[in-house]
Amino acid sequence: MLTIAFTDGSIRPWDDAEAKKIFWHSSAHLMAEALEALYPGVKFGVGPAVETGFYYDVDLGETQITESDLKAIEEKMIELAKAKETFERTEVSKADAMKYFEQKGDPYKCELIADLEDGTITFYKNGNFTDLCRGPHIKHTDDIKAVKLTSIAGAYWKGDEHRQQLTRIYGVTFPKKSMLEEYLVLLEEAKKRDHRKLGKEMELFTFSSRVGLGLPLWLPRGSQMRYTLEQFLRKKQAELGYLQVVTPHIGSKDLYVTSGHYAKYGKDSFQPIHTPQEGEEYMLKPMNCPHHCEIFRSSPRSYKDLPLRFAEFGTVYRYEQSGELHGLTRVRGFTQDDAHLFCRPDQLKEEFCKVIDLILYVFKTLKMTEFSAQISLRHQTDHSKYIGTEENWEKAENAIIEAAKEKNLPTVVEYDEAAFYGPKLDFMVKDALGRQWQLGTIQVDYNLPERFQLEYIDADGSKQRPVMIHRAPFGSIERFTAVVLEHTAGHLPVWLAPDQVKVLPVSEKYADYAEKVCSLLKNSDIRASIDARNETLGKRIREISLLRVPILVIVGEKEQADGTVSIRREGVDQGSMTIEKFIEYINSAIAEELS
Amino acid sequence: MLTIAFTDGSIRPWDDAEAKKIFWHSSAHLMAEALEALYPGVKFGVGPAVETGFYYDVDLGETQITESDLKAIEEKMIELAKAKETFERTEVSKADAMKYFEQKGDPYKCELIADLEDGTITFYKNGNFTDLCRGPHIKHTDDIKAVKLTSIAGAYWKGDEHRQQLTRIYGVTFPKKSMLEEYLVLLEEAKKRDHRKLGKEMELFTFSSRVGLGLPLWLPRGSQMRYTLEQFLRKKQAELGYLQVVTPHIGSKDLYVTSGHYAKYGKDSFQPIHTPQEGEEYMLKPMNCPHHCEIFRSSPRSYKDLPLRFAEFGTVYRYEQSGELHGLTRVRGFTQDDAHLFCRPDQLKEEFCKVIDLILYVFKTLKMTEFSAQISLRHQTDHSKYIGTEENWEKAENAIIEAAKEKNLPTVVEYDEAAFYGPKLDFMVKDALGRQWQLGTIQVDYNLPERFQLEYIDADGSKQRPVMIHRAPFGSIERFTAVVLEHTAGHLPVWLAPDQVKVLPVSEKYADYAEKVCSLLKNSDIRASIDARNETLGKRIREISLLRVPILVIVGEKEQADGTVSIRREGVDQGSMTIEKFIEYINSAIAEELS
Repeated sequence: MLTIAFTDGSIRPWDDAEAKKIFWHSSAHLMAEALEALYPGVKFGVGPAVETGFYYDVDLGETQITESDLKAIEEKMIELAKAKETFERTEVSKADAMKYFEQKGDPYKCELIADLEDGTITFYKNGNFTDLCRGPHIKHTDDIKAVKLTSIAGAYWKGDEHRQQLTRIYGVTFPKKSMLEEYLVLLEEAKKRDHRKLGKEMELFTFSSRVGLGLPLWLPRGSQMRYTLEQFLRKKQAELGYLQVVTPHIGSKDLYVTSGHYAKYGKDSFQPIHTPQEGEEYMLKPMNCPHHCEIFRSSPRSYKDLPLRFAEFGTVYRYEQSGELHGLTRVRGFTQDDAHLFCRPDQLKEEFCKVIDLILYVFKTLKMTEFSAQISLRHQTDHSKYIGTEENWEKAENAIIEAAKEKNLPTVVEYDEAAFYGPKLDFMVKDALGRQWQLGTIQVDYNLPERFQLEYIDADGSKQRPVMIHRAPFGSIERFTAVVLEHTAGHLPVWLAPDQVKVLPVSEKYADYAEKVCSLLKNSDIRASIDARNETLGKRIREISLLRVPILVIVGEKEQADGTVSIRREGVDQGSMTIEKFIEYINSAIAEELS
Repeated sequence: MLTIAFTDGSIRPWDDAEAKKIFWHSSAHLMAEALEALYPGVKFGVGPAVETGFYYDVDLGETQITESDLKAIEEKMIELAKAKETFERTEVSKADAMKYFEQKGDPYKCELIADLEDGTITFYKNGNFTDLCRGPHIKHTDDIKAVKLTSIAGAYWKGDEHRQQLTRIYGVTFPKKSMLEEYLVLLEEAKKRDHRKLGKEMELFTFSSRVGLGLPLWLPRGSQMRYTLEQFLRKKQAELGYLQVVTPHIGSKDLYVTSGHYAKYGKDSFQPIHTPQEGEEYMLKPMNCPHHCEIFRSSPRSYKDLPLRFAEFGTVYRYEQSGELHGLTRVRGFTQDDAHLFCRPDQLKEEFCKVIDLILYVFKTLKMTEFSAQISLRHQTDHSKYIGTEENWEKAENAIIEAAKEKNLPTVVEYDEAAFYGPKLDFMVKDALGRQWQLGTIQVDYNLPERFQLEYIDADGSKQRPVMIHRAPFGSIERFTAVVLEHTAGHLPVWLAPDQVKVLPVSEKYADYAEKVCSLLKNSDIRASIDARNETLGKRIREISLLRVPILVIVGEKEQADGTVSIRREGVDQGSMTIEKFIEYINSAIAEELS
């Protein structure tokens, strides 16, 4: 096992997230040293580790650098790494720290120091480069064996568009050269799997600046895919006793004042919708829960009616900065596979277990075999910021912990990560490239039942308040679609592929037979279409490959004579069979995928 | 055949819409005469015929009347009708007309006269009552044999809330007493069928003032019903080559500037949604077409790709005055069963025929056997207000006329009723009570393809503009649901009923067997549930009758012993049968309904 030694004396395995973070943070210092050597007088902002790698924001003055300059910086970094410089820590007074950077002429560091408390300030030095830093770091620069600077971007100092624009240089480093090679292969593969690229090639979705940024338009194939995902969940949820509801995409101010969301609408949100009626205000709905609370309230409820599980594929709208938008993973309008479970406190654990089962079923079906879950609990001692009674919180936290244990979930427990209204369980999935995605979530909520004064009549005739569980196995259809595309590289399972079968006559002569095959398939509820264009078979197959149709059916003289079809699945020849056999073949393939 | 003679010399059958209109307009004059006799000094606003009956807006000064006063007015009307007064027409100069009403002291009539042109003014006199009126009228008041004043409401003069509030008295009259009796029975039946009442009893939908007026919340049973309607259309549309798409519920200002809708957004609409980005504006979408145009534009299109039929169950939002809102028929948010067909000009007629077929299929399946269609064409001579070439308009108008003829539609042609962007065909359906509802619509559009610069590459390589057809067989899911409920009095066909089967054990002893029956039904995709409450069978059946579950399954000792079920369909005993036979029974009932 590869381990790394740190300046604080610890030794951690490379696979540890914290180890990587320190390693990459140290690499930012190394890059800074290289930059200072190559561009004397460069000024430095901040240089943290990120999810994969690090960056440093720098002010190069009049100098403009481009990606073509990165090679030289990489080489300098390797040279300095090989010099086996140590990271040296010094404690320094605020006055001395300020003096150092004033003399050096680095106003950004001075600004950072101004906000620090005397007695807490440390410098770290590697080679000729000294940085204001809390540490810790790797012990020696020569732990860094491979360097790749990946990109350059602009970034405002302190994220404030009114301040100086700095140059952000991103990079990644590794303790072994082979690791960088693997990483670069992964990066290349990730580009190929980018869902935005796949979405275009597979004709799934598009964007229009006229409709608006971050508002996907689902093309016919994409609409079919999201419909199939919805049907998949809808069916399972019906079996589990969920009840579908449909609510509008707006709600009046009063609704969000009641839910408490109104107070949180700021200048960074979609603004209220006014109407001809003086004082009337609607909001685009940012979540479905308040509407579902109103449905709960629409009728008296008895303890015998609970749990009530209201499900909705509910489209919500949240304003994101245009710079944050990204394909289907960061959008301004998205459809949650939402449900709200209203239950008695004694039903909480069982309901939680059932939701976990559902989420695991979703992951299993989509072959998302690597996942972990985070249990977010209250702060261990300070409970002042939470609403709901101590007793209910304990019940809910224990219910989650026990449910996770019963279901053998790989979990981490995080204190002080609960929402103010209840504890939660979030699922993180690793895709085929090992990247983490946050998907399904389950949250307990004591707040909304209180704010909406939700009640049921208990067995003893008393009025009781139900507990609410928010849950979304996909998270959102948009995000889930993106993750499934990147996880499968667009090679969707047959049950989910928008076009399941493409029928190709080898020439126009067999177009009628191809039509016959296609209509027999459609009659068996198989999503089949035909490509009888007057092009060579090879050209048509190449073009269709972009659509990632899982099964191609090729028909020519022999097939027509025998009443058979020749099958090619994901590029692999499956021989020929009768049409009836082929329908069986597909149905059993789908049954297997969904089993 | 009952006919009515009019002052203009014409004689029309009572069944003629125009005849009824004149008859009821004359009845408004008769009521005015009665009011003047009973309430001397009453001032008159306007008194038109409405869809069924008439009203008169009157200013009774200090006098307040209530529904209990209507009887006396009715009696006075009958007395005056029996007097066989004639309606006498006089032409009168503007000055004389003004003088007459000034002397009488009727400021509302004076205001009306002020807006009229000299030489066009006529008075009609019946008995002692003289009114400003264009006519014509019935010849004698004694054609009116039966009178019913139905309600009183407040109404602002000229609909302006800043002006005087008048008393609006509604009534209806008939040329035969038996007709009034039939009408009152119908009215009573209409009340029972009111979809708002059924919606509550059947637990289909609700409203919440906190969510907002006119924004339905679909409860689980209603959501199931609308889902079934959607699936019904979705399946048929897939067979017909429609492609489903999904688009957001908002669009940027730029989209609606392009479509031309932005200029029409007034103070009476939902106002724009602002964002943190200066100048950025979104609108709640009032229709789906601009989004679908952007989908058309997202890819180059060839003549071979056409027709392209983009379908979406698209929820749109339009602000209606709160006073106009009515159950599901007049709402602020509704889901159109929308589609936009982009076709070549030479495909227009064929596409139109196919859409007519689809609409007729929908009507037939819902047993809406009485319907008519209105063809709305341009003004016969003045074509200045229409966009699109003369040639295209002729092609489109002829396509509609020929398509309607080919499909043997009972049609009326109305000139000057086309939209500025193209001719259209609207369907009116008569429900079981003979009431007319406007449902499906098909519209040709030359405007949006022009505004969005939509193009396809024709066979000769030239760029051509497609024609667009807007169509919605239901009109909207909300309105259609309301009409289906009122048409069927809530006794939905089995395929459409949210709960198809309710299983009732005669006592708790047979609950297990009932559970078994229920789960066998569910496994066969039958929407079945159980009511094993510890209540008498009679009480349970009475309560369930509100839900209008079409089929009840009753199981007791005998059924359990024999492995059978006893069936009651729409209140009628169907005997007992094995569970397998019963599943067959339901499936064949559904197949027959949908055939």
